Amino acid sequence: MNASEKKVAVAIVGASGYTGAELVRLLVRHPQAEITALTAGRKVGRRLGQVFPHLAGAGLPDLVSIDAADWDAAEVAFCCLPHGTTQDVVAGLPRHLKVIDLSADFRLADAGLYGRWYGQAHRAPELQKEAVYGLTEVARDAVSKARLVANPGCYPTAALLPLIPLLEAGLIDARDIVIDAKSGVSGAGRAAKESALYAEVAEGVQAYGVAAHRHAPEIEQELSTAAGEPVTVSFTPHLVPMNRGILATIYVRLAPGAAADDLGAALQRRYSGEPFVGVVAAGEAPSTRHVRGSNGCLIGVFADRLAGRAIVLSVIDNLVKGASGQAVQNMNVMCGLAETAGLEQAPLFP
Amino acid sequence: MNASEKKVAVAIVGASGYTGAELVRLLVRHPQAEITALTAGRKVGRRLGQVFPHLAGAGLPDLVSIDAADWDAAEVAFCCLPHGTTQDVVAGLPRHLKVIDLSADFRLADAGLYGRWYGQAHRAPELQKEAVYGLTEVARDAVSKARLVANPGCYPTAALLPLIPLLEAGLIDARDIVIDAKSGVSGAGRAAKESALYAEVAEGVQAYGVAAHRHAPEIEQELSTAAGEPVTVSFTPHLVPMNRGILATIYVRLAPGAAADDLGAALQRRYSGEPFVGVVAAGEAPSTRHVRGSNGCLIGVFADRLAGRAIVLSVIDNLVKGASGQAVQNMNVMCGLAETAGLEQAPLFP
Amino acid sequence: MNASEKKVAVAIVGASGYTGAELVRLLVRHPQAEITALTAGRKVGRRLGQVFPHLAGAGLPDLVSIDAADWDAAEVAFCCLPHGTTQDVVAGLPRHLKVIDLSADFRLADAGLYGRWYGQAHRAPELQKEAVYGLTEVARDAVSKARLVANPGCYPTAALLPLIPLLEAGLIDARDIVIDAKSGVSGAGRAAKESALYAEVAEGVQAYGVAAHRHAPEIEQELSTAAGEPVTVSFTPHLVPMNRGILATIYVRLAPGAAADDLGAALQRRYSGEPFVGVVAAGEAPSTRHVRGSNGCLIGVFADRLAGRAIVLSVIDNLVKGASGQAVQNMNVMCGLAETAGLEQAPLFP
Amino acid sequence: MNASEKKVAVAIVGASGYTGAELVRLLVRHPQAEITALTAGRKVGRRLGQVFPHLAGAGLPDLVSIDAADWDAAEVAFCCLPHGTTQDVVAGLPRHLKVIDLSADFRLADAGLYGRWYGQAHRAPELQKEAVYGLTEVARDAVSKARLVANPGCYPTAALLPLIPLLEAGLIDARDIVIDAKSGVSGAGRAAKESALYAEVAEGVQAYGVAAHRHAPEIEQELSTAAGEPVTVSFTPHLVPMNRGILATIYVRLAPGAAADDLGAALQRRYSGEPFVGVVAAGEAPSTRHVRGSNGCLIGVFADRLAGRAIVLSVIDNLVKGASGQAVQNMNVMCGLAETAGLEQAPLFP
Repeated sequence: MNASEKKVAVAIVGASGYTGAELVRLLVRHPQAEITALTAGRKVGRRLGQVFPHLAGAGLPDLVSIDAADWDAAEVAFCCLPHGTTQDVVAGLPRHLKVIDLSADFRLADAGLYGRWYGQAHRAPELQKEAVYGLTEVARDAVSKARLVANPGCYPTAALLPLIPLLEAGLIDARDIVIDAKSGVSGAGRAAKESALYAEVAEGVQAYGVAAHRHAPEIEQELSTAAGEPVTVSFTPHLVPMNRGILATIYVRLAPGAAADDLGAALQRRYSGEPFVGVVAAGEAPSTRHVRGSNGCLIGVFADRLAGRAIVLSVIDNLVKGASGQAVQNMNVMCGLAETAGLEQAPLFP
Repeated sequence: MNASEKKVAVAIVGASGYTGAELVRLLVRHPQAEITALTAGRKVGRRLGQVFPHLAGAGLPDLVSIDAADWDAAEVAFCCLPHGTTQDVVAGLPRHLKVIDLSADFRLADAGLYGRWYGQAHRAPELQKEAVYGLTEVARDAVSKARLVANPGCYPTAALLPLIPLLEAGLIDARDIVIDAKSGVSGAGRAAKESALYAEVAEGVQAYGVAAHRHAPEIEQELSTAAGEPVTVSFTPHLVPMNRGILATIYVRLAPGAAADDLGAALQRRYSGEPFVGVVAAGEAPSTRHVRGSNGCLIGVFADRLAGRAIVLSVIDNLVKGASGQAVQNMNVMCGLAETAGLEQAPLFP
Repeated sequence: MNASEKKVAVAIVGASGYTGAELVRLLVRHPQAEITALTAGRKVGRRLGQVFPHLAGAGLPDLVSIDAADWDAAEVAFCCLPHGTTQDVVAGLPRHLKVIDLSADFRLADAGLYGRWYGQAHRAPELQKEAVYGLTEVARDAVSKARLVANPGCYPTAALLPLIPLLEAGLIDARDIVIDAKSGVSGAGRAAKESALYAEVAEGVQAYGVAAHRHAPEIEQELSTAAGEPVTVSFTPHLVPMNRGILATIYVRLAPGAAADDLGAALQRRYSGEPFVGVVAAGEAPSTRHVRGSNGCLIGVFADRLAGRAIVLSVIDNLVKGASGQAVQNMNVMCGLAETAGLEQAPLFP
Repeated sequence: MNASEKKVAVAIVGASGYTGAELVRLLVRHPQAEITALTAGRKVGRRLGQVFPHLAGAGLPDLVSIDAADWDAAEVAFCCLPHGTTQDVVAGLPRHLKVIDLSADFRLADAGLYGRWYGQAHRAPELQKEAVYGLTEVARDAVSKARLVANPGCYPTAALLPLIPLLEAGLIDARDIVIDAKSGVSGAGRAAKESALYAEVAEGVQAYGVAAHRHAPEIEQELSTAAGEPVTVSFTPHLVPMNRGILATIYVRLAPGAAADDLGAALQRRYSGEPFVGVVAAGEAPSTRHVRGSNGCLIGVFADRLAGRAIVLSVIDNLVKGASGQAVQNMNVMCGLAETAGLEQAPLFP
């Protein structure tokens, strides 16, 4: 980096949760970004190191309220607030800011669909229309011109990266997609809930939100675009006793004439130039351990024993490519920086 | 128990692995069974408490070689050896013994199928024919008359208990069954392998044996019987960082006219009198935590968002209902004891 | 058991927490006890299976308020409420009940000490005087005659069982005792707290309450009695990512002329007739895994490399011997039942 | 970094274990180092991505035998072999190489002591004399001039960083030091051993190597230097179910006139200019989570309840500051690079 180069000034709204902390982890090592403001709700006034001791040494500003942040000094805002309240906050931010929102508030293009799944009418429908769905590898051009990016959900990221190219290439049947996803616990956030207690999660596995999880319509929206027809999916998330990681095991029916090898080859072609998405060798199954702490997504394809079917495996770190890492990737694209800036770290294993 | 009642004398062949230890845990509390011999290979001569300190206080005999065991004194033998070697050992046991084999050696009725999946010709085909596949709730009568029971695999147990009644009732399509199974690590046994090290397993999730796991033909054999036609399934096991438990998430296509509620009702009817299999309330998802340490299997059914499809969830403890508990249940049936004897313990949570 | 034998009718006050659930797990298998009432606060009106799905099959009464419980029908009440509120509840219970309290409210005999450590004056000082500190192996006679037993804390149980005999025998220096204790997370209870979230606890270890934990005065009270002089200890608890278990690593200075072997021998003598306390072989280190789910306590002794010092290791399951199991043991003693009734289960490993 | 700057060419000997992988993780992001050779034993000929899939994308050379490596091209060799065999390998390496050895072979200056603890006479005593014990913060000058650095053990690093300054300042009694250390499992390495299996480690905690661990003499050697007199310590390591991290809880007796605050202040002064060692605020207890994946060491000090005593807490990541990170730090010092180069990453939490 040229030391004289000006850094992008960044504010993180809602820095006291796990995605906020992960943004900090990535951005303090970003050669062209600088954190100038951190906001919080209940934890206003505290030092970041009190809320996240692992970040105590980062030399960052204290947590302030949204109103108290110096917005003139910032160019980019990452928004890590819960859905529902986010739309009001983003609507109130100065228009000179590039905004990357990690909530669900701007992901669904259809306001009616948002209302049905999130239980309230959208209060910023104009922003909803303006927002670009920021699955970077798929929407890079649109992201590069966007002012407001809706950062994809963690499950959608893991499912869409393998499925979109396969649907676009007409290699799989859009009406028979089963997504069985397994996630670490950090996806539930840092709010104190009985269901996220160590003793409730350790030493067990369970499905949740069966046939009713809010990431389903988000997945379907993007798959419908890719397929050129309305797509409904079977999507079942599971909670696994680990901090980080999502594995999506996706069961698909092959299009007439297509073989599992074709799927692997198509994905290989599609992602050959991409720094963050890789296809593993035939016969290998990617593990979430292989991407922990990194912005990578690894995909593997197997022929199923059921004739005419294939199994597609996809792994990400839910806090990185599934949230804060992809958000930084989007910032890089929006600001004309190298897309990999701040995201080059190797995975942490074991 | 009537104190004067004679106890069944039991030998455990291969007592130094996890299923052997679990048999001991259950049998030391069984009111009508008594462990009279424990055999081991490399660990011959050691006390059980040296091999399994948690069982040091059980007052059991030392580990001896198979040849050194007093077979005249035993009525029942549990066999916990690796597949491949088991068939020779069982062939060499005295014929007065009732044998419950926890390996895969006698599960497949078709010797050719065994040869293809296990890489060697079967050396005791007569015993293979004699063996009864011991999914107790399904084969109770045959088990009660059997001399040799092939105890089902852990994954097959979790998958078959919900699927067999649904196929028998014609409620689901036998040609479109996807079984996504998640297992704890104890299923891999106690042998020292890099892939089972703590640091390789913790904090991650992965599929393994994709489209190639040896439990697939076992599942298909039993489903074919239930359906009255050859059944092939999609079966993908996953390794989850926990000691015990299997969750099978099963994606099925409904038969014409059938609804998800019909599946739940059929399972409820089928298992209403069973002490170990339960159907949870509509809308609830069973967790492996709910059966940890117990012989229970809990099943839940959900309508899928894909029209005409349903999601069936099934949980067991892989070491209990998926191995040693079901073995004791089979012993009870074979010996005319109360089927729940020694198996009444409540699950351990957290 | 003689089927005509009358069972002890038991109420559990505060059944929606982990110690309440553990009492249920143990008591449903107790041959001479019957649960006749379960009370809860916020969860009044719910079925036990809604609060603890693993206990859904136990056929127990629904959760009622304390006022709504039929106290005439009960002989024994286990009280699993938070300290501070417990004293009022116990004061309000009918006097015919034998009460075993699992909170801290009646453990400290000195009301002033209670006030200093728990931040409020004791409101039932007469009950406090009446209460017997129920470390069963030490106080068996007093427990057998008690109406109100203060069940010991989990850390004190792990520390006192090895230390009391050593102090009574004059084998160690009462002024130089360092207790480094490691606990699983269930000890923190089921209340939703950020510090007990899976993502805050997994993959890390930390000390907490350093030099300020409320179990210190409880340990000191009992050690002072054993030593015949006021004892102060160094006590540091640590949180370990596991559900259950406490390991106390205790560093002691030997009395003049004493050797580490003398400690082991003294403990062996002291506990040779005890069903729940064992001393492992010289050179072996007990693990919490060896007692998981059981009422056992295992103790090991090592000579230290520092001359004149020894290391004493002690493990329990914090929810069993450290809470609900010892409570049942105390009930057995108070009611004249076999002390091991309901507590014979072998440990669960892995 | 200036792109034209020449990078240090680095070979990793024994790259197929966890410390080797961790070196790779750190060095691929090191701006002034380049990995030119990776050697392995049994895994010779394999790609690094086959042995460590998380490093598949790093673009590194395949694993070769030690003989096949191009030693002329290398300037620095990290040696990650087991103790015992290391001394022969290092003796055979060309003398132009700077060598940082992560085994125990060169840590003990006294050849007799090595023989007693490691069960064999040292076969490269001249090298042993040449080696500098590389606790960087303490031996920076000697390291900068060294050709062969013995990288400290993980437990010694965690214990020595707080203790050496306290002994040097005469603030604590050198004859009464108790070190209770808790470690993650990766410290046991990647060799397949029953004791390191997931099912043997998860959900439990235990002491091991009690009063007999090989890191004790290493700790004592360095503390003796600091104290100016022979020091013996009580040292007990424990295995905790987590991948990474060491917490040392150290119980010390204060020197006459010293207070716990003096200890904190002395450590603060000693480490105020250090990038990797920090002292947390009074009353705070550092967690291993706060340094996971980073080269940091955090220290906290508490007054004990026992008069005249204090409790010192110290946390590191055993694979980073306790092994590969400190090795890179030593390389930086030996090669005249910025000491923090390649080591600036923030900790990974959760």
